[in-house]
Amino acid sequence: MSNKPSIPKGTRDFSPTEMARRNYIFDTIKKVYKRYGFQQIETPAMENLDTLIGTGGDESDQLIFKILNSGNFLSNVRVQKSKFRYAAQDDCQLLDDALIGERYPLSLLVEPKEILNSISEKALRYDLTVPFARYVVQNQNDITFPFRRFQIQPVWRADRPQKGRYREFYQCDADIIGSDSLVNEVDLIKIIDDVFTELFQGKLDYTISINNRKILQGIIESVGEQDKFEEIVVAIDKLDKTGIDGVKKELIQNSISENSVEKLLELCNPTILRNSIPETMNLNDAEEALNDLGFITDNFEDNINTQKGIEELEFVFEKLKTLGRKTANIKFDPTLARGLGYYTGTIIEVKVDNFPSICGGGRYDDLTSEFGLKDVSGVGISFGADRIYDVLLDNDLYPEFKGDTTEVLFYNYGEGEEDICLNYLFQLRESGINAEFYPDTVKQKRQYNFAVKKGIRYVITVRSEEIKKGVLFLRDMESDTQYIDKTIEEVIEIIKTN
Amino acid sequence: MSNKPSIPKGTRDFSPTEMARRNYIFDTIKKVYKRYGFQQIETPAMENLDTLIGTGGDESDQLIFKILNSGNFLSNVRVQKSKFRYAAQDDCQLLDDALIGERYPLSLLVEPKEILNSISEKALRYDLTVPFARYVVQNQNDITFPFRRFQIQPVWRADRPQKGRYREFYQCDADIIGSDSLVNEVDLIKIIDDVFTELFQGKLDYTISINNRKILQGIIESVGEQDKFEEIVVAIDKLDKTGIDGVKKELIQNSISENSVEKLLELCNPTILRNSIPETMNLNDAEEALNDLGFITDNFEDNINTQKGIEELEFVFEKLKTLGRKTANIKFDPTLARGLGYYTGTIIEVKVDNFPSICGGGRYDDLTSEFGLKDVSGVGISFGADRIYDVLLDNDLYPEFKGDTTEVLFYNYGEGEEDICLNYLFQLRESGINAEFYPDTVKQKRQYNFAVKKGIRYVITVRSEEIKKGVLFLRDMESDTQYIDKTIEEVIEIIKTN
Repeated sequence: MSNKPSIPKGTRDFSPTEMARRNYIFDTIKKVYKRYGFQQIETPAMENLDTLIGTGGDESDQLIFKILNSGNFLSNVRVQKSKFRYAAQDDCQLLDDALIGERYPLSLLVEPKEILNSISEKALRYDLTVPFARYVVQNQNDITFPFRRFQIQPVWRADRPQKGRYREFYQCDADIIGSDSLVNEVDLIKIIDDVFTELFQGKLDYTISINNRKILQGIIESVGEQDKFEEIVVAIDKLDKTGIDGVKKELIQNSISENSVEKLLELCNPTILRNSIPETMNLNDAEEALNDLGFITDNFEDNINTQKGIEELEFVFEKLKTLGRKTANIKFDPTLARGLGYYTGTIIEVKVDNFPSICGGGRYDDLTSEFGLKDVSGVGISFGADRIYDVLLDNDLYPEFKGDTTEVLFYNYGEGEEDICLNYLFQLRESGINAEFYPDTVKQKRQYNFAVKKGIRYVITVRSEEIKKGVLFLRDMESDTQYIDKTIEEVIEIIKTN
Repeated sequence: MSNKPSIPKGTRDFSPTEMARRNYIFDTIKKVYKRYGFQQIETPAMENLDTLIGTGGDESDQLIFKILNSGNFLSNVRVQKSKFRYAAQDDCQLLDDALIGERYPLSLLVEPKEILNSISEKALRYDLTVPFARYVVQNQNDITFPFRRFQIQPVWRADRPQKGRYREFYQCDADIIGSDSLVNEVDLIKIIDDVFTELFQGKLDYTISINNRKILQGIIESVGEQDKFEEIVVAIDKLDKTGIDGVKKELIQNSISENSVEKLLELCNPTILRNSIPETMNLNDAEEALNDLGFITDNFEDNINTQKGIEELEFVFEKLKTLGRKTANIKFDPTLARGLGYYTGTIIEVKVDNFPSICGGGRYDDLTSEFGLKDVSGVGISFGADRIYDVLLDNDLYPEFKGDTTEVLFYNYGEGEEDICLNYLFQLRESGINAEFYPDTVKQKRQYNFAVKKGIRYVITVRSEEIKKGVLFLRDMESDTQYIDKTIEEVIEIIKTN
């Protein structure tokens, strides 16, 4: 074993301070989810490879961490005889070039893809949506639909690690499955508003952008590019990252006609957008905005998808208007696309300042059909706990976590005082106070430093003079107040009322 | 994709009901840990393979789930040229025998062990102790010692799945590292007492067995078999599973002399044990017990390890006597061995009825030296959440989990009533009540069934007659009470006070 232990790149340890902050985020989200009738489930870290492979497209498959079969994992791997013959020829130049010493690279013999199916049958989940779809189908007879489930668990992606992007990170998902009603969309947007109202305490602006995939579909149909729907959505989705020029380039690369590209780019032009899209919750404005942008053409007005998309948006915005909002800016954003393939209706994304999306979601009509359950509509959101963590930290928005660390430390003066200290200690604990006794008889300065570093507010001293009187000496390090000759009951009272 | 989705064997999904029970166990343990000054950390699911391999012995290595390197994982695997030649010969009988069609088994070419190092660099943790040791060494400059940490996370083992043994399960560990003081042992035993007092509510007997590895060491030295320390400990550890005959067989297999085997077996004889070991916390009894068993020989009395072990036990038992206990039976068990290699002092195990150990732990003097940090003593315990889950279930000890599911359902009567219902709904949520609106306009019977299946206590009806009067109709399904014509404020009051 090397002398410098380390962890895999892209993974993290969480210290007590970090855990307190993370739990605060998770607990807030959890509380709001429950308030809205969502119930928690958990699924295993590992899924069968065939559950995960192919559900998110080739790009996702690359990101999956595969687990080696246990035991003799090579026993089922077979190689074509001809390949052995080829590899064994002394005069084979290709192999001799690749030869290091007396060893051949195995990759010349076997394709990784060929071997993969034989040596790995399981993998770590890369999101919570696919396991949820699998769960719903597997347990459909036990589930009461519409099913409101939430799930807060880590996921793993073999992504290139970079600032703010990790190979292990938590997702906090809530989905309602088995109901077409747009009331569910309203609930999810209100959840977002509730969570960030609590986490940001009104001190930070954030925007919930809403669009509807059907409008995008109608727009794309109205410019006659319905065959390129996915390519166009993926290109538009990158507007934030690549800018208008990047989107243009990607559209042209995907052989979109010049005329269509121009029309589609108008939609993405930030100047036009800023001027045309009012940041309101009124759908009439949204319809006007689309009109101004030149997308309400003859084709467009007749387009069933656009009309349906607009109706759906209208419903959501009107309900939100009726119910009001707390601290969110809610706006219609016709360029919001959200890359993932499975959305079919409302799409939602939450942004703060310069951070990437801190929450997102949408409606999907067909998530479980892959696993054999057809025509089950669902809608969901996912909070990005790691990004929210950074946003709260950067903006100094964490509260003080009282009760998460030790509140009281008993100084250790040696054997003579030990028993009485331990008795007091357990009385404090019994009354619900987090307390500990410094376990070793070391210099008081070291014990004091321990209290300071651990963030312990109170220190209790019981020396022979206190023992004689049956009292304790309590010091509040926060206010630097000393309480002399107090009984244990008085001490408990002081700590509990402070 | 097959039509029957499934999960890997030995893994489990957790339904909302199961999650509520699991969270109850975790929350109870967490609360007690915090009460004793422990702070939470988390470590990544994956560790570098060289952190995990070799720390728990060969048997543990077999249990590790290894993760395939991402990308072209075969590129670094090389095979000896001579093996290719051998494999390619047409007249090679061995290969032809193994030949299926035109394909050779790759395992004839490459040893799994040989290939493993090239294709896998990471693995899933199989316990929380090794990652904790790695964490302590890696973060030693930021940690305030003595460090009281707790950690509640899943671990993965490629064990053969069987009843009550899973491939993914949670551990709930607490350790104090950087202090020799036996006060820490006392704290840990009191934690166990606190946790099970709360979880079992005094309705279930449980026993905390305590021993000290130094006594075992002294006994083994006194029969002259110190070279076989580990083998003997491992054999004695199986007493519960294999019985006295099994232990005897294993001792003989390990070439322990006949005389020593007889002496060691006396220690394990349950009849002698029952008669000699009083179930008390008084160490004099323990010393007597050892004496009765014939282990206090001349050798024994002089044995430094036994004397030290007895002194340590004495300290722990005396302190426990002073402080009292809540519901635990605490006893000295000289046959308690605990298989794992790294314990060096106090060892602890908790049992209920016929269940396997539900909690265990002990002191280790040298956990971090593997990672380059020497002379750091620690002591810890680990609750087995999955077994505790089963114990509570079998004994019907789960409380009712109010607030974990929806408390109130609003019936959906259609568009006309929707807006007013949503307004009331959000008033309930604002006041802290978990509530939802049935999102679809379906038959009332179906909505009623939904409420029953989800365990929702209250149902609210708002029809046109209620809207006219500005009131609600509330039904308490638990007591079958109806509250007619109540204002929203009255409804909130009723729900909150019930």
